[in-house]
Amino acid sequence: MEIVKNPGKEKWFELLKRPARTDEEIQISVREILKDVRKNRDRALKKYTKALDNAYVENFRINKEEFENLSRDVGEDLKQAIIRASGNIEKFHKAQMPETVTVDMGNGLTCWQKPVPVESVGIYVPGGSAPLFSSVLMMAVPAKLAGCNSVYLATPPDSSGNINPAIVYAAMISGVDAIFKVGGAQAVAAFAYGTETVPQVNKIFGPGNQYVTLAKQMVNAEGVAIDMPAGPSEVLVVADSATPADYVAADLLAQAEHGADSQVLFLTEEEKMLEKVNESVTSLMNELPRKDLVEKSLESSKLILLENNDKIMEMVNEYAPEHLILACENADEMAEKVVNAGSVFIGRYTPESLGDYSSGTNHVLPTGGAAKGYSGVNIDSFMKKITFQKAEKSGLEDMGEVTMIMAGKEELQAHKLAVEIRLATKKQLL
Amino acid sequence: MEIVKNPGKEKWFELLKRPARTDEEIQISVREILKDVRKNRDRALKKYTKALDNAYVENFRINKEEFENLSRDVGEDLKQAIIRASGNIEKFHKAQMPETVTVDMGNGLTCWQKPVPVESVGIYVPGGSAPLFSSVLMMAVPAKLAGCNSVYLATPPDSSGNINPAIVYAAMISGVDAIFKVGGAQAVAAFAYGTETVPQVNKIFGPGNQYVTLAKQMVNAEGVAIDMPAGPSEVLVVADSATPADYVAADLLAQAEHGADSQVLFLTEEEKMLEKVNESVTSLMNELPRKDLVEKSLESSKLILLENNDKIMEMVNEYAPEHLILACENADEMAEKVVNAGSVFIGRYTPESLGDYSSGTNHVLPTGGAAKGYSGVNIDSFMKKITFQKAEKSGLEDMGEVTMIMAGKEELQAHKLAVEIRLATKKQLL
Repeated sequence: MEIVKNPGKEKWFELLKRPARTDEEIQISVREILKDVRKNRDRALKKYTKALDNAYVENFRINKEEFENLSRDVGEDLKQAIIRASGNIEKFHKAQMPETVTVDMGNGLTCWQKPVPVESVGIYVPGGSAPLFSSVLMMAVPAKLAGCNSVYLATPPDSSGNINPAIVYAAMISGVDAIFKVGGAQAVAAFAYGTETVPQVNKIFGPGNQYVTLAKQMVNAEGVAIDMPAGPSEVLVVADSATPADYVAADLLAQAEHGADSQVLFLTEEEKMLEKVNESVTSLMNELPRKDLVEKSLESSKLILLENNDKIMEMVNEYAPEHLILACENADEMAEKVVNAGSVFIGRYTPESLGDYSSGTNHVLPTGGAAKGYSGVNIDSFMKKITFQKAEKSGLEDMGEVTMIMAGKEELQAHKLAVEIRLATKKQLL
Repeated sequence: MEIVKNPGKEKWFELLKRPARTDEEIQISVREILKDVRKNRDRALKKYTKALDNAYVENFRINKEEFENLSRDVGEDLKQAIIRASGNIEKFHKAQMPETVTVDMGNGLTCWQKPVPVESVGIYVPGGSAPLFSSVLMMAVPAKLAGCNSVYLATPPDSSGNINPAIVYAAMISGVDAIFKVGGAQAVAAFAYGTETVPQVNKIFGPGNQYVTLAKQMVNAEGVAIDMPAGPSEVLVVADSATPADYVAADLLAQAEHGADSQVLFLTEEEKMLEKVNESVTSLMNELPRKDLVEKSLESSKLILLENNDKIMEMVNEYAPEHLILACENADEMAEKVVNAGSVFIGRYTPESLGDYSSGTNHVLPTGGAAKGYSGVNIDSFMKKITFQKAEKSGLEDMGEVTMIMAGKEELQAHKLAVEIRLATKKQLL
């Protein structure tokens, strides 16, 4: 990993740049897949599933009645772990549940804002060698809690056309209504447009590779709601020398193993930590099965020395990391100063992997600096807040004049007329 | 307006279609403008302001110190109206302010979710003949309330290079930090990338024409947060025969006057209302200065008879209108059944124009069916919700096993290691 000492502020922009990702070819093929699925529906899904997942699938849909049978191979220890993690996720997201806000505006005018669940949501979960069943919990548990009517899951099948049993089990535990055996951009297209088998949904969630991310962005530009732009995972760790270097190294490696395009940063105000952490990373890395991915990811990663904690927090907020670990003496104080981050891990006993699985917080988080403008997935993500207003005649009399003056100046005569015509009615209507 | 009686459900999809808008040429010019502003910055802004707004602007920035002077021509009645409207908007949005949610997960693990303001926001407000100063209030008031550090406004200058005084006054009242005299896609580009004069912001808000909307979608696909996709305005009015037909007609016309691409729908279960409303629309229309726009918009608008109120609410939720007016006997009951809508106006004395200006609800709302997945602008739009977690050693001991089992099954060894290495430490760290 590259070591950088006390970089001047003019160098921060370059230093904090994420690895760039623009691939014209991927754009073209995603656009083609979207068009094809929109037009040829299930037939297109079958074609891409054969071509890209090397699987022949006759029926994409798995109904919830089949979940129990398809997940019976999941070991008892994993089942119990999934149940406990799911319990924590439910507990934390339930506490976030918004309530109706009602305001008496005076004189017979009342306004309220009511949270209403999104009716149908589509959740995408990557498949492949390492099935991300934890992501199923992170999205389906709050979706059901919010009250979404239909919660659908899409995930690519293996080459025999099957879904990993742990994914099916997580779906069952969290109340998913149906699973669709389809992956990639074609899954996103199916949720966006609907096919004979896959229902069209109101909002699409979930992480994925570049194809999935681009497909989500493209259907979003067409008006379909999505959770957020999701790119490669990243972590920023802050530690002092009272934190064992191998804690930090393990946290950095945990992020790096997500993929070759993951980015990890380490910030400290103690110079001796730089080498210690670097050495520990090198030594721990050799034990990891995903060593190749990790090495690639560490190429774009940095260990940075800064003058003091204020500078550290300044850089944290400038970078806006998806995950922020504060493993140092005054972590609580520093946490108060966090302005831009997805999820924050405080103290020496809170590794980021706790949030990935079991603490109860959500692991679907804004990446690539999006934390400056986006929240991670939370209960709000599955609801719309609709506003209501009701005026008695007195309320309209009270605010009518103001409305007419403003409408008149904006040259919207009919807006003015809608008030005027009502106020002119002598008879009191019910 | 077209009259449709008791359409079968198989006809709803066609019936409720919004006027289509895809213009390849506009796409190309917006993409060109974005590229140009990104590269040539202020120079490009000057070029487009000259070409598109026919204005020569030397300095785009108006500092807040200049607001008072530039708005002194606003009449006292309008000033008072703006102050009252702004007071209601503040009152209603203040009541929505989210609080930190803290959950004791047990055994030394605490999770919390903290709302943090988006640091800098850029608000776009269309200019032109009818200056939408009300939109300034709708976005800047909640932005300041949420605690955004920097709230910037962009709006196109008139051909003398000036901004309408009412816009400047609304900006002053709501605490805007600076106004930039730039409009269209070039304003969105300036906020997205920053120029010598215009600061880059974290989130871009505001309605606009097709150029502005496309520009927002394009920079959103690049990772810049935006409020929502905003298209042509629309209203759906429900009324029975106890509601005077001219109330309904005025509400329909108020929406239609927004632009030729606005869409208005009227639903009723009483057949005689169809002709009554239609006649009233025709007669009131003749008094309107924007008659041409209105006539064009009414071409794609419909008066629909449905069997009963249940069918009406089914169609309402299927259409997902930006604005929904329920001017009928059992409006309260029907309001309970609203699942998809931006903002709802209940009863015979609540015209939609009240919400446009003064009731306190926000008028920046999802259009084109986006209300199925999006909320209108509200206090949340100006905040991110960041999650935090802190485990004592006991907390990690409690959830560590679950985490390690799950990480192991997802084949993320370093995630497991980050827990393992901490639990292996005998010494209790601070």
